[in-house]
Amino acid sequence: VDLLTAAPGDMPAQVQAIIDNGGRVFVAGLGVPRDVVNLCHDNNVLVASMCGKVRHAVAAVAAGCDLVIAQGTEAGGHTGTVATMALVPQIVDVVENKVPVVAAGGLFDGRGLAAALSLGAEGVWMGTRFIATPEAWGTPGYKEKLLSMAEDDTVVSKGFTGKTCRVARNDYTQYWEEHASEIEPFPAQFIRSINDGANHLGAGPNTEVDPSREFWPAGQGVGAINELVPAGDLVRSIVAEAEAVIDRMSTLR
Amino acid sequence: VDLLTAAPGDMPAQVQAIIDNGGRVFVAGLGVPRDVVNLCHDNNVLVASMCGKVRHAVAAVAAGCDLVIAQGTEAGGHTGTVATMALVPQIVDVVENKVPVVAAGGLFDGRGLAAALSLGAEGVWMGTRFIATPEAWGTPGYKEKLLSMAEDDTVVSKGFTGKTCRVARNDYTQYWEEHASEIEPFPAQFIRSINDGANHLGAGPNTEVDPSREFWPAGQGVGAINELVPAGDLVRSIVAEAEAVIDRMSTLR
Repeated sequence: VDLLTAAPGDMPAQVQAIIDNGGRVFVAGLGVPRDVVNLCHDNNVLVASMCGKVRHAVAAVAAGCDLVIAQGTEAGGHTGTVATMALVPQIVDVVENKVPVVAAGGLFDGRGLAAALSLGAEGVWMGTRFIATPEAWGTPGYKEKLLSMAEDDTVVSKGFTGKTCRVARNDYTQYWEEHASEIEPFPAQFIRSINDGANHLGAGPNTEVDPSREFWPAGQGVGAINELVPAGDLVRSIVAEAEAVIDRMSTLR
Repeated sequence: VDLLTAAPGDMPAQVQAIIDNGGRVFVAGLGVPRDVVNLCHDNNVLVASMCGKVRHAVAAVAAGCDLVIAQGTEAGGHTGTVATMALVPQIVDVVENKVPVVAAGGLFDGRGLAAALSLGAEGVWMGTRFIATPEAWGTPGYKEKLLSMAEDDTVVSKGFTGKTCRVARNDYTQYWEEHASEIEPFPAQFIRSINDGANHLGAGPNTEVDPSREFWPAGQGVGAINELVPAGDLVRSIVAEAEAVIDRMSTLR
């Protein structure tokens, strides 16, 4: 469930809808109001917060979040400037085991899972890799685009939402790179990109989109994603690969 | 030895000087001409190449480099856009064990060393962490600046050299952020920053510098660097911590 389009004042009502429909975890991408945390906890729903800086994690723990997701700049979608390798251990250090830290950004296989655990994370969050599955919902061409992209085919653009968002580079991101001073703040730019026909976020396979302009979030791990893999197989292969990495590492001792 | 100021045509002569003075490894940051590779190999000097993209690594191996250093955007100094967590495994995959891959960018402790090994690297390159040692050469205030910085106090600027370079954010980087269209290409901008009194790269502790404008490269791991540690102690503690991480990981099996 993506609450990006929820106006701030609507958030408790939207979260109540998630609770009413059986949600178990609420993940906030743009900060967590205290009343939302309380609402979730009163209903046995865990609250997680995507954190792009060390001080975001400090604030998330102080606000009562149950999980901190340390998301590096290489992640697809809304993202910050600090990269996963540097961010995760620095967030682990300030969180001090008060809550589990989950690593996100640039992770796509078992090597990344093992690396994240090495940095002190308790788990990983993979986004782009799971969009490239038969099960994932998305507009036509999105998955094929992911399979074709190299590691340097993403760009951080404010063109689609008004906030820094890592997406597939295309004519629309290029336009806004050349007209940066005209970008409006969120949510006005979000509405602008919808009106421009370049943003069908949340829409499915029966939507008509222009691949040269569409809003397709993607992380920098995308260059390693070369086939659609069923999500269950993906989870099993990632875990098996991480186990093999750990076994290989043990032989270094 | 930093050959940044060497004009391209001078490189063989400069490399010959390194060879004549007992250098064992030549690390190229901005590409390696074939004749330089041959000159090094004829003199039993290894050649390594800093690679910020997958195709740089392909080219480095094709050019005969002995080591590929996969350097993520979070690294201090000249750097690209792809982050370490995403870059290292993708470079490991294309290098296919033809030469060892070394991970660089955002690494500052044993957790990072273990993470890099998990990703398939054979070793790590740490820059900023070793500037914060008593042994390191640098202008007055540089080390103290590193100790004071948070993970988000760096910025990628072309202001000091004309090429994208991650440094401590200050008044000089801010000036060029606001006058980006006036930045000249390398090496003209490099000379400009010297003439502006903001660039004393390579100078030592008896140099007078303005801390609010000086060229101080720093990676995003800087937020975790809180004390000067003698280099030998640092190496030993990093290895010991990596071994402890590997032992902890083994218990997950």
